[in-house]
Amino acid sequence: MIHQSAWIGKNVSLGENAIIGPEVIIGDNTTIGSNVIIHKGTIIGSNVFIGDLTSLGKQPMANKKMARKPSSELPPLSISDGVTIGGNCVIYRGTILHQGVLVGDLASIRENTEIAENSIIGRNATVENNTRIGKQVTVQTNAYITADMVIEDDVFIGPCFSSSNDKYMGMGNYRHQGPVLKKGAKIGNNATLLPGIIVAENAIVGAGAVVTKNVAQGKTVVGNPARQLD
Amino acid sequence: MIHQSAWIGKNVSLGENAIIGPEVIIGDNTTIGSNVIIHKGTIIGSNVFIGDLTSLGKQPMANKKMARKPSSELPPLSISDGVTIGGNCVIYRGTILHQGVLVGDLASIRENTEIAENSIIGRNATVENNTRIGKQVTVQTNAYITADMVIEDDVFIGPCFSSSNDKYMGMGNYRHQGPVLKKGAKIGNNATLLPGIIVAENAIVGAGAVVTKNVAQGKTVVGNPARQLD
Amino acid sequence: MIHQSAWIGKNVSLGENAIIGPEVIIGDNTTIGSNVIIHKGTIIGSNVFIGDLTSLGKQPMANKKMARKPSSELPPLSISDGVTIGGNCVIYRGTILHQGVLVGDLASIRENTEIAENSIIGRNATVENNTRIGKQVTVQTNAYITADMVIEDDVFIGPCFSSSNDKYMGMGNYRHQGPVLKKGAKIGNNATLLPGIIVAENAIVGAGAVVTKNVAQGKTVVGNPARQLD
Repeated sequence: MIHQSAWIGKNVSLGENAIIGPEVIIGDNTTIGSNVIIHKGTIIGSNVFIGDLTSLGKQPMANKKMARKPSSELPPLSISDGVTIGGNCVIYRGTILHQGVLVGDLASIRENTEIAENSIIGRNATVENNTRIGKQVTVQTNAYITADMVIEDDVFIGPCFSSSNDKYMGMGNYRHQGPVLKKGAKIGNNATLLPGIIVAENAIVGAGAVVTKNVAQGKTVVGNPARQLD
Repeated sequence: MIHQSAWIGKNVSLGENAIIGPEVIIGDNTTIGSNVIIHKGTIIGSNVFIGDLTSLGKQPMANKKMARKPSSELPPLSISDGVTIGGNCVIYRGTILHQGVLVGDLASIRENTEIAENSIIGRNATVENNTRIGKQVTVQTNAYITADMVIEDDVFIGPCFSSSNDKYMGMGNYRHQGPVLKKGAKIGNNATLLPGIIVAENAIVGAGAVVTKNVAQGKTVVGNPARQLD
Repeated sequence: MIHQSAWIGKNVSLGENAIIGPEVIIGDNTTIGSNVIIHKGTIIGSNVFIGDLTSLGKQPMANKKMARKPSSELPPLSISDGVTIGGNCVIYRGTILHQGVLVGDLASIRENTEIAENSIIGRNATVENNTRIGKQVTVQTNAYITADMVIEDDVFIGPCFSSSNDKYMGMGNYRHQGPVLKKGAKIGNNATLLPGIIVAENAIVGAGAVVTKNVAQGKTVVGNPARQLD
């Protein structure tokens, strides 16, 4: 089903039963998988690949218990040239994926997020809202990027990484604060970052470390709680 | 495809290619996404939202190696008024979601589970069978709720939480025992709970803690193994 | 949509809108869910169950930043008799699932992987490429099996397990080395294994342990970093 107001470029390969909503734009030489759903207004560049059973441009949801209601007015989802997206992904309206980004199967990315050139979001990884991810960043499989995080260029995040942004765990009026990972920081698999932690340039967080204090530039921390190696 | 024995209320919005099975009931003003599959007998209330590519009312599966075979006779999946369910979710037959529950994208919930009013099951979270979750509970993104858990009202579970229920890791005839989280308990991100652990009322488990002993009322534990702060 | 070159056995139950690609083979008494996508050349045995919204036989993806490009020539995905696969799964071309394997909902399995008889890959678990998994292995829910791992027969891997294979976290020309789990090893929930770690026969890794050194036969390790119990 292609809505009559959608615009489809040249040499686009459309999978079986792809559902293309109103005002969607799809650039040349792009491949859309089967059973894909592209919501209203989504902008997709040229030479993009979208896997099967993925939905793009979804509106945020909410219930009574949620601390922060999503904004109702969001710009369209924008997917630049050469982006590759896996199967069974969910990507929200209000987000920008820059050129060459790769998103693995079963990943999800919420609203108001921006991911710069050639970065990788691994399979089954989850990226929350209001997050900035730089260039050539690797977010490995099953990693969890909480809301309000800032991840600079060339950061490496290992598989099963866990972050959080709410020091009072739903109790307080605390302003949520995601961790900040500075340029070139490297985080081992299954490491845990507490809310607001800053990992400075080229610092290393060991696998399984639980980071309760900021990590200084170029230093390495390991353990629970994480302590600095000399 | 709507089966002729299904009952669809007023002002229901059905997505493209939604598959509505026999004896399904859908209440007024409910929205069903595209490519959604609703299996036989599922009961959905009014003002419900179901995201794209979700399947509801699935029968449990098994193979030779599985310790516990699922029961073959299960009541239908019941989804109350005002429930919101994300995209690419899988929810089994034999489960009840009460009014106002929110289930994030890519989450899955097994059979014989009950989730009370206004609770949140985060994106990519997994809830196993035979679990009771109280009111106003938050289960954050990517958290894992093992089988046979009891989670009381107002509990907060951080992202990437891990629980288990099999002390002998598949070796013994041990009766599986899920952890119990009492009213108001708060669990930090990526914390690990061993089988049968009880976290008492308003106790706090720090991020990344590995909890090997019960946690007393109102107390805080941190570290690996977790020890009580005074 | 069934491609004219596909071969469908007797008593096959095809869900609504299943998409069966060219040269696919499906054995007798097999059940295919709704909105399933089966890519070119996939071979499926008899008495197989495939859940809704799953895609089978997908080609690997890549972008500029990826260290290792996937091989372009892969044999078809092969699914043996009596295999059960959940809903919303993604399984790649170039992989073999042997008789009686169970794959849970929302799991994904990459190329060049082989899983032997009656093993279980839990819900939301992720198995990377070039991995060998033996017989009667349990990989529980949400566990992460990195690339190049070897998992022998009768291994038990608890929920939320994390592994990695890149000691230099994307910095070096290091040859990636996945952990090796020898016959009968048991790994607790949310344990972390560093690259190349060997867990010997019948050894036990406690829940939440961070394993930085090899584990000797029949021994138990716990803590962060993991130390051996006497």
